[in-house]
Amino acid sequence: MTTSRTYKDSMMFYGGIKLFAGTGCPHLASQIAEYLHIPLSGCDITLFPNDNLFVQLHQSVRGQDVYVIQTTSPPVQRNLMELLIMLQTMRLDSAGRVTAVVPYLCYARSDKKDKPRVPITARLVAEMIEIAGAERYMTLDLHAGQIQGFFSIPGDVLSAFHILTVHIRKRLPDMKDPVVLAADLGFAKKGRNFAASIEAPIAFIEKRRTGREDNPEALTLIGDVRGRDVIIVDDEVDTGGSICQAVELAQKSGARNIYLVFVHPILTSGAPEKLAQLPICEVITTDSVPISEEKRAVFGDRLKVLSVAPLLGEVILRAHEGRSVGEMFDE
Amino acid sequence: MTTSRTYKDSMMFYGGIKLFAGTGCPHLASQIAEYLHIPLSGCDITLFPNDNLFVQLHQSVRGQDVYVIQTTSPPVQRNLMELLIMLQTMRLDSAGRVTAVVPYLCYARSDKKDKPRVPITARLVAEMIEIAGAERYMTLDLHAGQIQGFFSIPGDVLSAFHILTVHIRKRLPDMKDPVVLAADLGFAKKGRNFAASIEAPIAFIEKRRTGREDNPEALTLIGDVRGRDVIIVDDEVDTGGSICQAVELAQKSGARNIYLVFVHPILTSGAPEKLAQLPICEVITTDSVPISEEKRAVFGDRLKVLSVAPLLGEVILRAHEGRSVGEMFDE
Amino acid sequence: MTTSRTYKDSMMFYGGIKLFAGTGCPHLASQIAEYLHIPLSGCDITLFPNDNLFVQLHQSVRGQDVYVIQTTSPPVQRNLMELLIMLQTMRLDSAGRVTAVVPYLCYARSDKKDKPRVPITARLVAEMIEIAGAERYMTLDLHAGQIQGFFSIPGDVLSAFHILTVHIRKRLPDMKDPVVLAADLGFAKKGRNFAASIEAPIAFIEKRRTGREDNPEALTLIGDVRGRDVIIVDDEVDTGGSICQAVELAQKSGARNIYLVFVHPILTSGAPEKLAQLPICEVITTDSVPISEEKRAVFGDRLKVLSVAPLLGEVILRAHEGRSVGEMFDE
Amino acid sequence: MTTSRTYKDSMMFYGGIKLFAGTGCPHLASQIAEYLHIPLSGCDITLFPNDNLFVQLHQSVRGQDVYVIQTTSPPVQRNLMELLIMLQTMRLDSAGRVTAVVPYLCYARSDKKDKPRVPITARLVAEMIEIAGAERYMTLDLHAGQIQGFFSIPGDVLSAFHILTVHIRKRLPDMKDPVVLAADLGFAKKGRNFAASIEAPIAFIEKRRTGREDNPEALTLIGDVRGRDVIIVDDEVDTGGSICQAVELAQKSGARNIYLVFVHPILTSGAPEKLAQLPICEVITTDSVPISEEKRAVFGDRLKVLSVAPLLGEVILRAHEGRSVGEMFDE
Amino acid sequence: MTTSRTYKDSMMFYGGIKLFAGTGCPHLASQIAEYLHIPLSGCDITLFPNDNLFVQLHQSVRGQDVYVIQTTSPPVQRNLMELLIMLQTMRLDSAGRVTAVVPYLCYARSDKKDKPRVPITARLVAEMIEIAGAERYMTLDLHAGQIQGFFSIPGDVLSAFHILTVHIRKRLPDMKDPVVLAADLGFAKKGRNFAASIEAPIAFIEKRRTGREDNPEALTLIGDVRGRDVIIVDDEVDTGGSICQAVELAQKSGARNIYLVFVHPILTSGAPEKLAQLPICEVITTDSVPISEEKRAVFGDRLKVLSVAPLLGEVILRAHEGRSVGEMFDE
Amino acid sequence: MTTSRTYKDSMMFYGGIKLFAGTGCPHLASQIAEYLHIPLSGCDITLFPNDNLFVQLHQSVRGQDVYVIQTTSPPVQRNLMELLIMLQTMRLDSAGRVTAVVPYLCYARSDKKDKPRVPITARLVAEMIEIAGAERYMTLDLHAGQIQGFFSIPGDVLSAFHILTVHIRKRLPDMKDPVVLAADLGFAKKGRNFAASIEAPIAFIEKRRTGREDNPEALTLIGDVRGRDVIIVDDEVDTGGSICQAVELAQKSGARNIYLVFVHPILTSGAPEKLAQLPICEVITTDSVPISEEKRAVFGDRLKVLSVAPLLGEVILRAHEGRSVGEMFDE
Repeated sequence: MTTSRTYKDSMMFYGGIKLFAGTGCPHLASQIAEYLHIPLSGCDITLFPNDNLFVQLHQSVRGQDVYVIQTTSPPVQRNLMELLIMLQTMRLDSAGRVTAVVPYLCYARSDKKDKPRVPITARLVAEMIEIAGAERYMTLDLHAGQIQGFFSIPGDVLSAFHILTVHIRKRLPDMKDPVVLAADLGFAKKGRNFAASIEAPIAFIEKRRTGREDNPEALTLIGDVRGRDVIIVDDEVDTGGSICQAVELAQKSGARNIYLVFVHPILTSGAPEKLAQLPICEVITTDSVPISEEKRAVFGDRLKVLSVAPLLGEVILRAHEGRSVGEMFDE
Repeated sequence: MTTSRTYKDSMMFYGGIKLFAGTGCPHLASQIAEYLHIPLSGCDITLFPNDNLFVQLHQSVRGQDVYVIQTTSPPVQRNLMELLIMLQTMRLDSAGRVTAVVPYLCYARSDKKDKPRVPITARLVAEMIEIAGAERYMTLDLHAGQIQGFFSIPGDVLSAFHILTVHIRKRLPDMKDPVVLAADLGFAKKGRNFAASIEAPIAFIEKRRTGREDNPEALTLIGDVRGRDVIIVDDEVDTGGSICQAVELAQKSGARNIYLVFVHPILTSGAPEKLAQLPICEVITTDSVPISEEKRAVFGDRLKVLSVAPLLGEVILRAHEGRSVGEMFDE
Repeated sequence: MTTSRTYKDSMMFYGGIKLFAGTGCPHLASQIAEYLHIPLSGCDITLFPNDNLFVQLHQSVRGQDVYVIQTTSPPVQRNLMELLIMLQTMRLDSAGRVTAVVPYLCYARSDKKDKPRVPITARLVAEMIEIAGAERYMTLDLHAGQIQGFFSIPGDVLSAFHILTVHIRKRLPDMKDPVVLAADLGFAKKGRNFAASIEAPIAFIEKRRTGREDNPEALTLIGDVRGRDVIIVDDEVDTGGSICQAVELAQKSGARNIYLVFVHPILTSGAPEKLAQLPICEVITTDSVPISEEKRAVFGDRLKVLSVAPLLGEVILRAHEGRSVGEMFDE
Repeated sequence: MTTSRTYKDSMMFYGGIKLFAGTGCPHLASQIAEYLHIPLSGCDITLFPNDNLFVQLHQSVRGQDVYVIQTTSPPVQRNLMELLIMLQTMRLDSAGRVTAVVPYLCYARSDKKDKPRVPITARLVAEMIEIAGAERYMTLDLHAGQIQGFFSIPGDVLSAFHILTVHIRKRLPDMKDPVVLAADLGFAKKGRNFAASIEAPIAFIEKRRTGREDNPEALTLIGDVRGRDVIIVDDEVDTGGSICQAVELAQKSGARNIYLVFVHPILTSGAPEKLAQLPICEVITTDSVPISEEKRAVFGDRLKVLSVAPLLGEVILRAHEGRSVGEMFDE
Repeated sequence: MTTSRTYKDSMMFYGGIKLFAGTGCPHLASQIAEYLHIPLSGCDITLFPNDNLFVQLHQSVRGQDVYVIQTTSPPVQRNLMELLIMLQTMRLDSAGRVTAVVPYLCYARSDKKDKPRVPITARLVAEMIEIAGAERYMTLDLHAGQIQGFFSIPGDVLSAFHILTVHIRKRLPDMKDPVVLAADLGFAKKGRNFAASIEAPIAFIEKRRTGREDNPEALTLIGDVRGRDVIIVDDEVDTGGSICQAVELAQKSGARNIYLVFVHPILTSGAPEKLAQLPICEVITTDSVPISEEKRAVFGDRLKVLSVAPLLGEVILRAHEGRSVGEMFDE
Repeated sequence: MTTSRTYKDSMMFYGGIKLFAGTGCPHLASQIAEYLHIPLSGCDITLFPNDNLFVQLHQSVRGQDVYVIQTTSPPVQRNLMELLIMLQTMRLDSAGRVTAVVPYLCYARSDKKDKPRVPITARLVAEMIEIAGAERYMTLDLHAGQIQGFFSIPGDVLSAFHILTVHIRKRLPDMKDPVVLAADLGFAKKGRNFAASIEAPIAFIEKRRTGREDNPEALTLIGDVRGRDVIIVDDEVDTGGSICQAVELAQKSGARNIYLVFVHPILTSGAPEKLAQLPICEVITTDSVPISEEKRAVFGDRLKVLSVAPLLGEVILRAHEGRSVGEMFDE
C-alpha cells in the first residue's frame, strides 16, 4: 500500500473535509482521524426514553466534504438507524458531499433469494443508505462482491486481506507446508486468492445436509492437510460454529498447527469462549468491528487485531482529493 | 362508525386478502384478524445471533392484497427494520398490493428542523417504508397531520379519538363542569377538537424555559379549571413527565377530579409507576401500542384500554374492497 | 443577527453567484441584490397572448451558483409557474447549482388531509419546485414547520420573527402589561415562542363551530387581557377576518391598546380597509409579499413594514460561501 | 371511427369508471359524460380569497378508474394548477387508476431550445402531470408529436383532423380545384397529411425575418393557389396574426374562396374580430377549447364547431375496458 | 415439478395473457406457447438499413398481461436492444402488466468490480430492463444469485438444474463411483448443490496465475476422481476453454468416463468443435440459448438438449394466475 | 464561431478534464483532443467471444470532468452499448462529472407514435444514457429538436449547419439563382433556416402514398427550380433513396447544377454508389459519422467532408470552464 502526503498539503475539491463518528466504532473512527491529522467533528447522538434516536451536529457542514464513520455490527438495527439519521442530517444541513464509511456492512448474507419468499435485505440496506443521503460509500470485504451492484451510488469496496496477508507472511518461515483451508464453499474463490497471495495450496470444507436425525450435517475436507500447518480463512466469524467444525475436521485429517484468519470479528456472545478452547495457535483479525476488552481477554496473547484505520484513512484522503485509490495497491 | 358486512361477502379487486403480523403488536394483529374472520398468514421471523433479522413467508403472496400489521413502538429500531424487511419480502414475492398497517408510527416527533443541524427522521421513515415496498399505509393519530405529506404513497391516517370520545361521553353525566386540558401547546388545536366533541371548554398548559438554574422551567395554566373536573388529553404518553406537571398544576389551580386520555401508550420504563401515584381517576388509552401485564397491573382498575382493532379491521376491509373509508365517519 | 463581510471577499465554491428576480417581488429582489452588492442578472419574462409564460436569460448561467428570487403570493398560479419555468431554464442552461428563494410559499395551509378526499397541495408544490430543477430552497416562516419534510432537497427555512421582535421590543417601554394574543390555536406554539422572546404572557382565541344558524361560530378568549396592551400575532393575514374577530373580542375582554404583528401581508382585496377601521395602534409586518402603494395608503402611519432583504441576502451569501447560517442567530 | 357498445355492457378491469370535470371545459366534459351515459362525479373546486385553489370530492374514488377532464387553455396557469391538484386528490384518495384527459395541452409550443437559455416548458408540464398522480393521459393534436416522448407514462394522443376531414369532404363538391395551404412551415408535414386525406395538393407560406426596419418579415407563398379554392389549415389559432397574413397573401396570389380549418380555437382577445373581417367562407374548428357565446356571435354563421366529445368518450370507454383504441381508426 | 391445470380454466387477474417473441429464441418461445395452448401474438421486428430496430405490434395489448420472451445470447447487443424496445412498446401501448422473460441474461459475469475502473454491466442491464417498462422478469440460473438484487422489480429466477438432474439420475445406474467436478471455484457452492442432489461427492479445479511466461496458469484438481466417472458441471459454456482444461486434468488424474452438464449453451464459434474432440460421453444442456443445426451436428448423438419450455410456461401460467411458483418445487 | 483561449489557461471548476473515445469515431475523437491540446485517456474496450463488451480505464477518473466521445452510427447497438458501459464505468469510478459527447444520436427518427403500437425509442435511448451515468450530453443536429425534451439532464444540442453554410457561401458566387430544396417535408422549417442563412429561396419535395400498385408514391416539387442551381439539403442521408428521387425530380423540373448538403453521413451499404451516379456537383457533409476510405473513394473529388471537431472541442472546453456556449454563435 502506497501512502500519500498528509492532508494539509492537499487541495480541496469539495469544500473542507469533516469526519463524524457514530457510536458503532468510536475507537476506529478516532484512529482514522489521527491518521488524517483531522479532529472528529462533534455531534450529539441521543437515545430518548421512547427509544427514538436523535442527532444534532455541533457545527454546520454546509458545503463540506463529510465522511460519516459508522460500522453496522450488533446492535445492528440501532447502528444502522443511527447511520441513516446521521446521513440525512448531513444532507439537510447542505453538506457539499456525503460519504458513508461503513467498515462492516450488515445484512450482507441476505444477498439473494436462495429459497422462495425471503427478502434480499442487503439491497434494502443499500437503498436506505442512498435515500438517507449518502452520495458515496466505503466498506470492507463484502460477503459477496456483487453487493456493490445493489448500490446505485459509487463506492470503494476495499479488502483488508492485504493487511492480513502482510501479517501472515511474517509467520510463514515458521510454518511447515502451510495450506489454506476455506471454511465455507461460498468463500472458495476468495480463499483461493488468499492462498495464492501467500503461495500456499488450498483445501475446502464441504458441508451437506444428510436428512438423518442422528447426524443432520455431513462434513468433508476436500484437499490435503495431513502433516501441514493449516490456515483457516473466512470473511466473518459470528458464533464460531463453522470454525469449530473446521478445526475439528482439520485435526482429524492430520493437520499440524492451526491458524485462524478473518476480517470481521462479529464474535457473538459465547463465540470467544468457544474459539479459545480450540487448538488454534493464533487468531488474526481486524478492528472493522470493535472487540470488547472482555472478549479480547478470553483469547489472551493468541489474538492479533490489525487496524484498518490507515487503510480507510488513506482512502478517505484520496477520495477527498480526487486521487486514485487503485494505485494504492499498484493496480 | 358504520361497520360493514363481513369479509366473505366482498368482491376481490386486488386478489385475495392476506394479513401478516410482525412481532410488535401480535395481540392487536390477532384481534384485527378476528374482526375480519380471516386467519393471520404464517411467517417465520428470526433474529440470528449476529443480530440480523430474517423473514420467510409460509405461503406465496403472489397477486394477493397484503396487509403487514406492525407497530413501531419500542424496541423502535427492531420493530421498524422488521416492518421494512417484511414489506420487501412481500414485494419480491410478487404481491399484488402491499399495505403497511402501522398503528403507532415512530419518530413522528422528529418532523421538522426546529433547531439547526438536526434530522427530519419522520420523513426518512416514510421514505424507507415506501422504498421497502409499501404501496399504501395506514396509521393512527400522527403527532402532526402534516406527516401524511412525507409519504408519496396514499394512506389512511385514522383517529382513535372517536373511540376515546365515545368512552368519555359515558363518564360525562358524573362529571362536574368538565374542562379539557391540553398538556402541550403543540396539541392545542387537536385538544380543542376533542373538547368540542364533548362540548367542554378548553384550557392549556404553557411551558417556558426561564434560564434560571433553580427553576429552569416555568409552567402556566391558561384558562379556567377551578372547581371543575379536568380531562387531560394528549396524543402520546412516554415518560409521563409532562402529565405529572399538568396534574400538579391543575391541582394547584383548584381542579376537582382528573382524568387522563391519550391514544398511544408508549409508557416507557417507570412511567406507569409515576402516573399511578398521581391523583388521576381514570387513565383511558388504546392498544395501538401493547401494554405489558406488568404495566397494566401498576394501574389496577384505573386503566381503561380501548381496542383499535375494529377500526383498523374495518378500514382494511374497505380498502380491500375499494369502498369509502370516509363514510365510516359520516364524512 | 451577525452579519458577515461583503461578497467581494468571499471564495467561490460553486462558480460565481447570480441573482434572478421573477415578477412576484421585484423590489425585495432589488434590495437583496443591493445588500449583496451584486446586480440582478437580466432575464426576459413574457406573457404571450395565449397566456403562456416564456423566459429567456440575457446571459449564460453555465456553472454558476444561481438564486431565483420569486415570491408566490397572489397571483399565485402565475407566480408559481413563473418560478418553475425559471428554475427549469437555469437547470437546462447547465447552472452549477440552483436555489429557489421563495419569501412566501403558497399553498402552505393545504398541508394535511384534515378531512377526507382533499389534496395536500403544499407537498405537490414542493415536488414541482424540485422537479423543475431547484437543488435547494429558502423561505420564511412556513405555516407549519413540517412542510420542510415535504421537500427532499435541503433548504433554509428562516424566521422573520427575529426582525419583528427587535421592532416590538422598542415599543415595550411604552406598553402597559403587554400580553401576546394568538389569533388561531394552530399558531399557539409559535405564539408562545414570540411571547417568550419579549417576556410577555400569552392568551389564545378559541373558535368553535356551534351548528346554530344564528351564530355559527363561538369565540372564546382564553387567558387574561383585561387592562393590558395586547399584541395580536399570526404568521399571515389574508382577508383579515380572524383578526377582526380577535380585536373585537380583546376589546370586549377589556384590552387596552392593541398591536398587530405578522410576517406575510397577503392582505387580499378589502383587507386593508377592514383592518384600518379597527382600533389597532400599529400594524407591523414584513415585505415578504409586496404591499402596493394603494394598500399602504389605507393604513397611513400605522403601518410598519420591515424588510427581510438583509436576512435573505445574508443567508444567500452564506449558502454561496459554504458557511453556517445557524451561527447568524447564535444557534 | 368505429363506435362501441355502451358502457353498461362492459367489464370492469380497474374498478368502476368515474368522470370528473375541472372548470376549464365544463360543457365538453358534460358531453363526454352524456356519450358514456355516466354522470359526472361531484367535486367542489374553490378559489380562496388568497388565490389558493382547493378541491374536495363529494364521494370516495377508492379503487375506481378515474378520468379527470380538464383543458389547459387560458387562463392557463389556473387551469393547469387545477388539473394538478385534482390529480393529486384522486391519487391520495387511493384511486385505482388516474387518467388526465386534457383536450388542449398548454405550453406545447415551448417544446425545444431553439435559442439558448430558454425553457422546454412542455417537458415540465408533462413531468408535473406525472408527479401529481396521472398514470395515463389523453390529449388531442399536440403541436409536435414528439411531446409524447416528454411523458414517461403511456397516453393516447388523438387527432381531431379525422373529424375536420369528414366535414370538409362534404364541402368539396362545391369547391373549385381546392388546395390546402399550410400557414406555417412547422405544420408542413401535418398539412400534407390533411391534403392527402382530401386528395388535394398543398402549398405553403414561408415567413422570413428580413432585418429591415420598414418590413421586418417577408412572406412567400410556395405552391399554386391561383384560381383555386384555398383551405388554410393549422393546429391552433391564437391571435390569428399568421392567418391574416396567409389570407392576404393567398388573395394576392389569386385565390378564389378561402376556408379556415384548425383544431384548437384559443382565439385570444380580439382574434375573432380580426378573423371575422377576413374574406373567409367558413371557419371550421372543434370544442377542444371552449368558445364563449360572445366570440361565437362575432363569426355568425360562418363558424362551425365540431365536437370532440364522441372521440374522447369512446377512447375513455375503450381505455376503461382494456380494448384497442387504434382499431377505432382501422389502424 | 408439479404442473397445473391448463390455461383455459384459470381466472384472469391482470387482463388476458399475451405472449410475444423476440428474434433471440423463436423456437423456445413457440414451445412455451404450445405448453400454454396460447398462440404467440404477432409483431413486426424490422432492422432498417441504418441499423435501427423497429417494432410494431399487430394488435393492441391495452390492459393485457404481457410476456415478452427474448433471450440475450449473441448477438447480445441486438437481442438486448430488441428486448428493451419491445418492453417499451408494450408499456406505451398501455399494457396491464409487462413481464420480461429472459431465459439467458447477458452480462451476468460483469457483476462486480473485482478490479478497479471496470463496469458492473449486469446492474446496468437490470436498470435498462426496468426503465424500458418491465414490471417483472423471469430468468434461468444467473451466474450469481445476487444479480436478483440488481433489479428493483420482483422476478422469478428459476433453475434448470432440476431438469438436468432428472436426466443425469437416469444415467447414474451405469456410472461407476460418480463424482461431480466443478470447473471453476466460483461455481463451488452450486456444484456442491448439484452433487448433493445426485448424492455424489464433489471435486474442484483450481486455477492460478503463475506469472511465469512458459506456463502462465497452473491448474490443480482438488478432491478425488481416480477410477471414477466424472460429471463436469457449470452454469454456462462459452468458448469451452475451461472445460477442455478440466477434461484434460480429470483424465491425467485418472478419471474414467466423463460427462458434461451445463445450463446455458452459448457455445461461441469453434466451441462445439473443441468440445467434440474431447473424450466426453455425453454433453447435457438446455435450450435457454438456441443451438444451430450446424452446431448440433458437430456433437452428433453425444449432445442432449433438454427443453426449459415446460418450466418457463408453467411459471408464466402461475404468475398470470397469481399462484405460487415455489410450490412447483415443493418448497 | 468565436474560438477561445487554449485549455491550459483555464480554471478547473470540476477537477481536471479527461477525454475518452469509444470505438465509434476514433478519428473525430483524436481531432477533438488535438483541438484541445489534451491527450485522449487510455481505456481498453474488449469484445469477448460471447459478444459481451468490457471496459477498463487505464487510470482513475476520480473527481475528474470526464467527456466520453462516442457516435452511435452503425453498428448502432454495439456503439450504443459501448457508450452506456463507458458512462457507467466513469460513474462507478467516482468521476466528478460525466458528459456523453454523441456526435450522431441513434434512433432519433423513432421520436413519436405516428402509428399505433410502436415504440418511442429515442426516449428510451435518452433514459438509458441518463441511467448509465451521464450528467450532461452533447450532440449535433437532432432529427427533431424536441428530442432535447426526452432528456432530463441538460445538454448542448449544436448545429453543424453553421459549418456547412460557411462552405456553401464560398460556392455561391459561382451559382446561378440558387434555390434550396428540402428533400422531406419534415425538414421544411430547418430547410427554410438554411435557405435564409444563404439568402436563397426554398422549394420542397412532397411525397404521397397513392395506394396504386404500379406507382405507390407520387412526388411533387413545390416551388420554383427551373434554370436554377439547386442545393438539396437534409439532416441525414442513409440509403440515399429520397435524395435520388429529389435529384431526379429537380432535373425533370429544369434544375441546373445540383449540390447536396447534409450533416450526418450514415451512408449505408450501397448508398455511396447510388449517390455517385447522380449528377450532383458536390456532396458536402461532416465527420459526425466516420466515412470509410472505400466510401470516400466512390465519390472522388466531389465529396467534401467538413470536420465538427473544432465545434465539439470548443464546446467541451467552454462546458469545462463554465463559460457560455451561446456566445460562440453571437447569440
